[in-house]
Amino acid sequence: MIAFSYVKFLLGPILMGLAFLMLAPCVVAWRIDSPDLKAFLISEAATVVVALILTLSRPRQRPKLRVRDMFLLTNLSWVTVCAFGALPFIFSHTVGNFTDAVFESVSGATTTGATVLTGLDSLPMDILLWRAMMQWVGGLGIIALGASVLPFLRIGGMRLFQTESSDFSEKTFPHARRILNRLLFVYLGLSLACAISYWIAGMSLFDAITHAMTTVSTGGFSTHDTSIAYFDSVAIEFVALVFMLLAAMPFMLYLPIVLGRPTSLLRDGQVRSMFGIYFSVVALLVIWLTLTDQVNVPEAFREVAFNVISIATTTGYVSADYTTWGSFAIVVFFFLTFVGGCSGSTSGGIKIFRFNISSVMFGETVQRLLHPSATFSRVMQGRPLTDEIVASVMAFSLAYAGTVGVAATLLAAAGNDYVTSFSAAATAAANVGPGIGDTIGPVYNFAALTQPSKWILCVTMLLGRLEIFTVLIILTPAFWRD
Amino acid sequence: MIAFSYVKFLLGPILMGLAFLMLAPCVVAWRIDSPDLKAFLISEAATVVVALILTLSRPRQRPKLRVRDMFLLTNLSWVTVCAFGALPFIFSHTVGNFTDAVFESVSGATTTGATVLTGLDSLPMDILLWRAMMQWVGGLGIIALGASVLPFLRIGGMRLFQTESSDFSEKTFPHARRILNRLLFVYLGLSLACAISYWIAGMSLFDAITHAMTTVSTGGFSTHDTSIAYFDSVAIEFVALVFMLLAAMPFMLYLPIVLGRPTSLLRDGQVRSMFGIYFSVVALLVIWLTLTDQVNVPEAFREVAFNVISIATTTGYVSADYTTWGSFAIVVFFFLTFVGGCSGSTSGGIKIFRFNISSVMFGETVQRLLHPSATFSRVMQGRPLTDEIVASVMAFSLAYAGTVGVAATLLAAAGNDYVTSFSAAATAAANVGPGIGDTIGPVYNFAALTQPSKWILCVTMLLGRLEIFTVLIILTPAFWRD
Repeated sequence: MIAFSYVKFLLGPILMGLAFLMLAPCVVAWRIDSPDLKAFLISEAATVVVALILTLSRPRQRPKLRVRDMFLLTNLSWVTVCAFGALPFIFSHTVGNFTDAVFESVSGATTTGATVLTGLDSLPMDILLWRAMMQWVGGLGIIALGASVLPFLRIGGMRLFQTESSDFSEKTFPHARRILNRLLFVYLGLSLACAISYWIAGMSLFDAITHAMTTVSTGGFSTHDTSIAYFDSVAIEFVALVFMLLAAMPFMLYLPIVLGRPTSLLRDGQVRSMFGIYFSVVALLVIWLTLTDQVNVPEAFREVAFNVISIATTTGYVSADYTTWGSFAIVVFFFLTFVGGCSGSTSGGIKIFRFNISSVMFGETVQRLLHPSATFSRVMQGRPLTDEIVASVMAFSLAYAGTVGVAATLLAAAGNDYVTSFSAAATAAANVGPGIGDTIGPVYNFAALTQPSKWILCVTMLLGRLEIFTVLIILTPAFWRD
Repeated sequence: MIAFSYVKFLLGPILMGLAFLMLAPCVVAWRIDSPDLKAFLISEAATVVVALILTLSRPRQRPKLRVRDMFLLTNLSWVTVCAFGALPFIFSHTVGNFTDAVFESVSGATTTGATVLTGLDSLPMDILLWRAMMQWVGGLGIIALGASVLPFLRIGGMRLFQTESSDFSEKTFPHARRILNRLLFVYLGLSLACAISYWIAGMSLFDAITHAMTTVSTGGFSTHDTSIAYFDSVAIEFVALVFMLLAAMPFMLYLPIVLGRPTSLLRDGQVRSMFGIYFSVVALLVIWLTLTDQVNVPEAFREVAFNVISIATTTGYVSADYTTWGSFAIVVFFFLTFVGGCSGSTSGGIKIFRFNISSVMFGETVQRLLHPSATFSRVMQGRPLTDEIVASVMAFSLAYAGTVGVAATLLAAAGNDYVTSFSAAATAAANVGPGIGDTIGPVYNFAALTQPSKWILCVTMLLGRLEIFTVLIILTPAFWRD
């Protein structure tokens, strides 16, 4: 039996939180006399009313939440936030149609950053703020999800990160809650530090706040059509780069730093691999750009480092059109789309720890071929790498490839050329943002796609953000059976 | 200690076999007074001499062959066959340069079927015959390898197919040898049946023989630039289709048929899945072509069935330019490149049983998410699906993706556009043949590629044909350590 009424009730506080945040663009719209004022007020009212109804529907008894309830709650939270977050876009004058409004909201809440809005520079501040806030909410949600529900649900090898904090049994619930609160505190702290840094680096206060929100969430929405390239500032690019990296690391590892043990971050296998991969790709492309005489070394380093980190951390800011760097760069950036950051961060993609697990398995296979009768015990980061985790990473990889494959096929059937189809599917599943080609490349956006294409991408973004299985599982008949 | 001298000695009979087969084009060249006569005679002489030297170098004692010797033998067999098979191309007037000669030979011995020769229709028969024979030899080699060494070596989950026939210990060696002989008999029988069928369907005797050799090996070399489209005959296409399917099924399953138990083939899980996948893709594309009003249903069915089966079985014949069917078809054909046929057949690619294992793991993962405390026991086709097999399939998938990824990146660095880079890497690793795009698409060939690109593809074809790990393992320092 799924505790549907209790799950419904739990959506109340989430929606109330969204309504509270929506007050900010309402105030901004009021102050600047925005044409979107009514749109925001109606959305605010609708969100508050539904949030109240849900909160007041509290069932008399608090049932024990089971695994299936968690799955349902996770899915419904994101769908609900996407739906109510879309309301201002739906009612506003600035977003074309219903599909575009939903796409922008989903791209926000999943921290993807693909946009269908053009002429961002001339849009009212309220809409720009709300877009950034949607990503910030999405990042907040994924940090909470990654620290609590996902390891508990054993999705895609995440059981490796199951700690006492992800044990929501009654015994340890207060402890888990304390950890969650601390993580949210870290998220707030990073956001604040990022905004201040941007401001010092030369952004306007508004740009600093909005970009901070879309940086720490590795979202990538900007307030300018040309993204970070608009500022043409080394200082701003440097701030973005540092905070994108910070946002792609496991937030759990920031807790010991607060307690005065700063080395935990650098000793973490996932973090080390992440820096190793990112650095290798940067080095490779700097060498390429220099060898092909496209720019001098410092300029190459500046452009490569920024855009590689932006795509790899699944942020999606753009400081230069890297698709003009030749097909080698295009191929490298395509593969980079899949990489992602660390688990327990706000970034998407396949994630570094799965590459770590894969490479352990790869090494073991080679050893086994050489020594067929030997036995092996696998350990990663001090935890046993059980067969269950390996099997679950394998299933995740398959599901990920399947998601990108099916999405690309459907996008091609919807009339897109094959480069657009592939790169749109990849960038949506990894929650990156920009794609490749003359339609959705780094200097274009998603406005030109057909409505069916946009809906396909909405589903793909949600699948990617929720680690695929969270969504797939509720589509199985077995989920709904007793 | 690697028994290097004994491994070297074992290459003797293999090379002698190649020399024996090379007599055929020598005779043809003699009879038609070919300009390549000298090229063939020199190659024949060189092959015989080296084969004799190796055979006469028999060590006094027969050492026990260990796993590493098997790996070395497998790699050296292919490299040797590729090298000596390339001699006629190197010395001939018809093949441009050394790189092209090696490429054509490797594409043959790996049963890939990508060609760098243009104007096939006007080439002398001896060269055309030798190209076809190289693929036939490659097919023969892979059947022998798949039935003996690969399951024994536990490559990429192939241990699932380990039977008493793959036990080369002294006790069961005669039995294993008997099974191998029977498999080669099946291969010969299929080749003969295919040649006769082609001949009855209207091919000339020469075309029938050469195409039979490249059909049962799922190689795909043709004697005409326009491939099977040259004949424009439903009967010939039908014969090709039937024998491509027969060649993509596990040859081991033909043995019970010879013994009068014909149902084993249809009860096999891998064969069923193969037909299921192929049929679904055919149905999908027929519907697409009909819906988009490109051709009528019977014509659509004819063109789709032939080209889908040809690519999926990794043969690579072409009867129509499917890249003109729209980007949906292109995306589908791109994915089809990876599929492949059954293990224990002559076809390449990822192979159906790995999809079967993946889908078992996928199902288990979903069940585990729903029932976290349940225990699972995995069985596939009546054999236990051990964790070792699962881990090894995972490592294989990773290695496969890595091979395609690295090859694509190197091809892009070598100056190819990104569509050519991706599709060349994919088609070479899967030993299919035609790619996508304006350079290596189905109506083009590989002649226009740069020399470095061709060498990259040679390595990729060999990696794909030998299930990647067979090659990778001998590149590890641990392999050469005691």
